[in-house]
Amino acid sequence: MPGERPHPDGLAAGRGEVFQLLRDGRPRTRAELSAETGLARSTIAERIDTLLAKGLLRSADKAGSTGGRPPATFTFNPQARVVLAADIGATHATVALTDLTGDVLAAEEKKVDLAVGPRAVLGYVVETGTALVERTGRAAADLLGIGVGLPGPVEHSTGKPVIPPIMPGWDGFDVKNHLGERLGVLTLVDNDVNLMALGEHKAYWPDEPNMMFVKVATGIGSGLISDGRLHRGSAGSAGDMGHVQLPHGADVPCSCGNLGCLEAVASGSAIAARLSAAGITAETSSDVVALARAGSVDAVQQIRQAGRDIGEVLATAVSLFNPSVIVIGGSLSQAGEHLIAGVREVVYRRSLPLATTELRIVQSRAGNQAGVIGAATMVIDHALSPFGLDALLER
Amino acid sequence: MPGERPHPDGLAAGRGEVFQLLRDGRPRTRAELSAETGLARSTIAERIDTLLAKGLLRSADKAGSTGGRPPATFTFNPQARVVLAADIGATHATVALTDLTGDVLAAEEKKVDLAVGPRAVLGYVVETGTALVERTGRAAADLLGIGVGLPGPVEHSTGKPVIPPIMPGWDGFDVKNHLGERLGVLTLVDNDVNLMALGEHKAYWPDEPNMMFVKVATGIGSGLISDGRLHRGSAGSAGDMGHVQLPHGADVPCSCGNLGCLEAVASGSAIAARLSAAGITAETSSDVVALARAGSVDAVQQIRQAGRDIGEVLATAVSLFNPSVIVIGGSLSQAGEHLIAGVREVVYRRSLPLATTELRIVQSRAGNQAGVIGAATMVIDHALSPFGLDALLER
Repeated sequence: MPGERPHPDGLAAGRGEVFQLLRDGRPRTRAELSAETGLARSTIAERIDTLLAKGLLRSADKAGSTGGRPPATFTFNPQARVVLAADIGATHATVALTDLTGDVLAAEEKKVDLAVGPRAVLGYVVETGTALVERTGRAAADLLGIGVGLPGPVEHSTGKPVIPPIMPGWDGFDVKNHLGERLGVLTLVDNDVNLMALGEHKAYWPDEPNMMFVKVATGIGSGLISDGRLHRGSAGSAGDMGHVQLPHGADVPCSCGNLGCLEAVASGSAIAARLSAAGITAETSSDVVALARAGSVDAVQQIRQAGRDIGEVLATAVSLFNPSVIVIGGSLSQAGEHLIAGVREVVYRRSLPLATTELRIVQSRAGNQAGVIGAATMVIDHALSPFGLDALLER
Repeated sequence: MPGERPHPDGLAAGRGEVFQLLRDGRPRTRAELSAETGLARSTIAERIDTLLAKGLLRSADKAGSTGGRPPATFTFNPQARVVLAADIGATHATVALTDLTGDVLAAEEKKVDLAVGPRAVLGYVVETGTALVERTGRAAADLLGIGVGLPGPVEHSTGKPVIPPIMPGWDGFDVKNHLGERLGVLTLVDNDVNLMALGEHKAYWPDEPNMMFVKVATGIGSGLISDGRLHRGSAGSAGDMGHVQLPHGADVPCSCGNLGCLEAVASGSAIAARLSAAGITAETSSDVVALARAGSVDAVQQIRQAGRDIGEVLATAVSLFNPSVIVIGGSLSQAGEHLIAGVREVVYRRSLPLATTELRIVQSRAGNQAGVIGAATMVIDHALSPFGLDALLER
């Protein structure tokens, strides 16, 4: 009879399984854990002791029911650690602190100017993050890691922005090491829309393996969930629908150098520019939303048409990617149903019946928290995976 | 010290790991297997004995070098079993027999008329498949399973065609059970282009996790490989680019009921129809290819333009999906470089630099074997996975 063996990924057999099972939040007894994993009771006991000592599990017994005996049922303790999440957008940055389920415990939002460069912007993230940890009464040692979303292409493996069009001075900056050195914790970086897709999926659509998240604000981008996982593509630029050319917009110049890109026609800034040209004061995507909310027929008509233009590109995306849910987020989606009505109008007319029979096109529920939930989820999924957990327990 | 435990998926610990390691084809000794898996030598010995008995491993010792002792090095034996693969297209069906690496041992191709219905076409598959097994000197018991590709949408989990436009009488037919009952083996069914993508990826691009395969023949379709796995989408219709609307083709009616679909403009049959209208005799995609090969300037110009039209849709696909390789296959790709030249012309002009820097657009290397290699790969990957292997070894 062979003895216990090390797990292929370096984790002692069973420590991973016990914890991964309990991450669903359902309390279990030792006997249940033994039955579900096939591990010996003695192994279960040892694993539980380790996880209890690290705070990752807690007793789920009713208060006073154990009469001084050791706890009998155990559950995942999402308060064991905290995670920092930063969602850096074109005009605003949100820094949040979450627990180990990605629930936001505290957050701060601030206007930022990305052109001041990475050191200044990331300095704000470190300062705000540290303050949030203190303000919520947590120790610095409780911090599991930080996840960061940036409004441009990011090479996920190195955490460096790659020629980001709206981030002057950020190209190739080592965001991962810069933050990692200052905070001394695991740091992961990705494109902001990818993280919004991940956050919306984790929080509201965990049972839909194929989802598309579209952000419509200053720019237009999307994130794809394929078979439950983020599809980043070979250069990390998957979901980049803002620079797809619209057939009827060929004369509108785009910041990328081409003509007629979706973003140049249907983004919040494009609408603001058209409204301004018509004598209606609007500079930003938020101004357009404010006008629509105040009843401006021009703004509402422009938003509806932007939805139709976005729908033209999404009709192709539906044929190619066949998601069961398209979530529309970003500031321009917050002006009521106008944007999404335009999207639905074109997608359901243009796409094949098979791809739209069970397709839902819905508004973001995570709203402006999608990005920080996604950034936290990226860190949690990495750190609490069997491999990450091993490193965590060795510390 | 706890004893041996059952594997979470029901497989005794280690039997899976030893075999999965050896599937790379590299011979290993017991000591090497022990070091790589962390399993005890006694466990390794037991696993190897089981796998040798089933023929899935064989000795890799030099002949005569062991002096009568038991073998010292072991390797995967791809000849242990055989797999049937059927690639059923709009006009032709190919039935092949492969080994456990997907290498084709024997194949037969025949013209088929799908309108004769599923029973007749699948009867041909069973008859030809059985003949191939016999002709190659294999026993019926050696057959691991059969994989089938169909030219239309397929619900992969049930193996049933879903409202397939060019397969009258096939809608909802239970292909999986029909073949499973006749052959008595594992039967898996998928869309033909998905399987061509899988075959081309397995045989020629295993190190490129994000790939797109485009089939241009009677119709136009594509298959997507995301992070090394087939992206089927929520209704199994992912990659359906034939019915994306082209901006400039709005007046051409398509078999799907819409106007201006890519397939109605740029498929082999669409070109054949235009050539006919111009007085040049051509009925099928193959006729167009034959004309181009014979030097018809009209046919070559039409193929080049079809490439540009396909490029218009692929430019959007590149932005959304960000593959590192686009493989162009199907009969129309076999008329030299004309089709692919048109595709490259538009994709490299239209897509963002980040997405095209490392993008290669290449001709299919698997050619008309892509479909059967993919069908066999689908069966092999399923049957030799840790879960599938367990079932195989219990038989």
